[in-house]
Amino acid sequence: MWLEPAPLLGAGLSRRVLLQAGSRLAAGGPGRARRFSNKAVLVEKEGEAGIAVMKFKNPPVNSSAWSFRQSFRHQPEKLENEKSIRGVILTSERPGTSPPPHDMKKKDDQPTMLSTGRLVPGAVAEALLVQPDLISAINGAFPAGGCLMALTCDYRIMADNSKYTIGLNESLLGIVAPFWLKDNYVNTSGTEQPSVPFNWGRFPTNMTAAALLTLHRSLNEVVPEDQVHSKARSVMAKWFTIPDHSRLLTKSMMRKATADNLIKQREADIQNFTSFTSRDSIQKSLHVYLEKLKQKKG
Amino acid sequence: MWLEPAPLLGAGLSRRVLLQAGSRLAAGGPGRARRFSNKAVLVEKEGEAGIAVMKFKNPPVNSSAWSFRQSFRHQPEKLENEKSIRGVILTSERPGTSPPPHDMKKKDDQPTMLSTGRLVPGAVAEALLVQPDLISAINGAFPAGGCLMALTCDYRIMADNSKYTIGLNESLLGIVAPFWLKDNYVNTSGTEQPSVPFNWGRFPTNMTAAALLTLHRSLNEVVPEDQVHSKARSVMAKWFTIPDHSRLLTKSMMRKATADNLIKQREADIQNFTSFTSRDSIQKSLHVYLEKLKQKKG
Amino acid sequence: MWLEPAPLLGAGLSRRVLLQAGSRLAAGGPGRARRFSNKAVLVEKEGEAGIAVMKFKNPPVNSSAWSFRQSFRHQPEKLENEKSIRGVILTSERPGTSPPPHDMKKKDDQPTMLSTGRLVPGAVAEALLVQPDLISAINGAFPAGGCLMALTCDYRIMADNSKYTIGLNESLLGIVAPFWLKDNYVNTSGTEQPSVPFNWGRFPTNMTAAALLTLHRSLNEVVPEDQVHSKARSVMAKWFTIPDHSRLLTKSMMRKATADNLIKQREADIQNFTSFTSRDSIQKSLHVYLEKLKQKKG
Repeated sequence: MWLEPAPLLGAGLSRRVLLQAGSRLAAGGPGRARRFSNKAVLVEKEGEAGIAVMKFKNPPVNSSAWSFRQSFRHQPEKLENEKSIRGVILTSERPGTSPPPHDMKKKDDQPTMLSTGRLVPGAVAEALLVQPDLISAINGAFPAGGCLMALTCDYRIMADNSKYTIGLNESLLGIVAPFWLKDNYVNTSGTEQPSVPFNWGRFPTNMTAAALLTLHRSLNEVVPEDQVHSKARSVMAKWFTIPDHSRLLTKSMMRKATADNLIKQREADIQNFTSFTSRDSIQKSLHVYLEKLKQKKG
Repeated sequence: MWLEPAPLLGAGLSRRVLLQAGSRLAAGGPGRARRFSNKAVLVEKEGEAGIAVMKFKNPPVNSSAWSFRQSFRHQPEKLENEKSIRGVILTSERPGTSPPPHDMKKKDDQPTMLSTGRLVPGAVAEALLVQPDLISAINGAFPAGGCLMALTCDYRIMADNSKYTIGLNESLLGIVAPFWLKDNYVNTSGTEQPSVPFNWGRFPTNMTAAALLTLHRSLNEVVPEDQVHSKARSVMAKWFTIPDHSRLLTKSMMRKATADNLIKQREADIQNFTSFTSRDSIQKSLHVYLEKLKQKKG
Repeated sequence: MWLEPAPLLGAGLSRRVLLQAGSRLAAGGPGRARRFSNKAVLVEKEGEAGIAVMKFKNPPVNSSAWSFRQSFRHQPEKLENEKSIRGVILTSERPGTSPPPHDMKKKDDQPTMLSTGRLVPGAVAEALLVQPDLISAINGAFPAGGCLMALTCDYRIMADNSKYTIGLNESLLGIVAPFWLKDNYVNTSGTEQPSVPFNWGRFPTNMTAAALLTLHRSLNEVVPEDQVHSKARSVMAKWFTIPDHSRLLTKSMMRKATADNLIKQREADIQNFTSFTSRDSIQKSLHVYLEKLKQKKG
């Protein structure tokens, strides 16, 4: 029996949703708000400013996660081809809910997981180098895939609300974040403190904004909840005074080595992960966690 | 004539004390507070929670430093074998005193120092990857070896008391921190600012907690003095919701390359250090510092 | 037609001014304030403390930028040879003005730019490892070369004044910071967030000191404007309790790899830069920016 790990699934889901949604933006005409929606995401392009807001809707999206992901891989290119979009703000439609909900369902075969393992790192590598600027406006719970989504963004603004959390929760499942998720985390936070990946998402954020910023160094700003979106817009407006190609080249200079390494090492990573998660002890650990989750929800 | 450098000695002493003390914890029965003590450290295991508190006692321990260190090397393994201990809080027994006091005594031969140089990095490499979580509850002066001890921990909580200091003081002696101490510092602080290693420990911490956290980026939290221990316990309690093997694997993912490099480079490091400290100018510099210390104390 | 990029020019100018001015300090007698000035910089050595203050004067210095830079390369050695200077504070003579003003004039030939490209990285590599401690007391606008100057310092103290800015502005010109500027930025800030290089200098700093420190992680302290200089002096006074050779060796340990890589890669960097900036699209982008600047000033 195989359990599909949350980080891969969450990541795959969120990225795919993001990117497929982005690719549809070309359909509307310029100069007016356009709306697109699918099961998981609502996209609004705002006037002429070149900003699109991507609002993640409430779950459930679990059952269709895999089919969603099939067309995931080449979407970043499409998003790049939507020239009128210079920046994307990622946020929750209903504050307090998780943008990329976990899919903790069992997977029935190993090949599926392996395919996932191959798709997601490739998509992350592309997303790291995508043309539009990405800003996370964090107004809810952003664990696992939500955290990965935030880490691939260029900027992270969090609402100062003690109910919200963000972070990696792989270790809670008894597994370990893949190296490419760790690399993105270290690049944004700047530290290699081993405590950070497992405490980041699990700490209640009921502390001052300054303390939160120090502890969660991947965050760029913590602002009052009603200013998360306006702040994201004002940051982006300033960035737009910079030529698009300069922003993209800067991004590439900072991230290309990480993205290249991600692609280079992913086969070995899949082998390690497969071998690790097939151990009886790890399977047992995953089940314990899933049972707890079920009891919590039921 | 040879002077044994403080960082090596402090480090060796503190680690050895930590680890030998840890290995004795198995002696008591579960479910009740147990106490062990030796000349330098008092260990209390607290109930069933899996937390042990290691309280460093007041000096002087200088004279016995070398004999302490002899059995230092293989202690991390023993600590790992004490399965009932999932986390260790390192702190001062009497707030305000230094956990690993300096041993500034002369050493009478070069082989002794070289042995020390071989023992300490190996022990640090093991400590970096040890199973129990380690949290420093910093309620006193933590220079040199105390700082190294804090840097090998998974988390650092400091009391908001302007009398306390933490940092590397090798440069005050006219020598330079060994590369593996620098590597640990850079990994936790995230910066390669050259000023940081030599100002960290020497700055009075009479600034706001937020400013202190920004300046001393290896620190994770600064809290009121009476909350240092309770904070350490609550952080650890949260970590314990994560399976032990996940925490250990996360630690390994973050630190293994540093630990491996430490082992690989230590011979060359010893050669450099020996050659450097044998210069007349450096010996003179060490003497000047020691004389100042004597006058201060006397 | 060739445009000389601001970062190289600004950098070249500021370093050269700094270092040439430093080399003249030997002329005065010890024990009294000495003054030297040239078109761009005013240097005062303060008594016996071993501190020199280097005050950058108001522009215009644009027209003579290139001639200034000719003798730039070997100045760090001279500064090191001035043994009575143990630390240098870099600041603005008239608060609010930019220490190393941009030279946005057209350059008439490619060889000039290439020479610049060869001179500046070499000088930066030397400056990174120079003997005196360098502290930036930031009381004005420090873009581009001013930012590079600050990044090569050992410490950065900024006045808490919302009118002041610091950061890299290459991307505004439609070009990209050279790799060695990026490396220095990453080393001091500790993060590889792609947003940071292009937002750092452009954000108004009208936020709390704590938020500013979190966002601009290369800064060490933010203090009230009237305390910038006294703070720099007190930091330096503490450093001076450390033997000079220890401070220098610590600096070397932290920066030598970066400096070596800078020298090693600079030829390839020049090739890339030349090829990049000779594209029509980039030339156009540079012109657009320059026109905007002209309109602003005129």
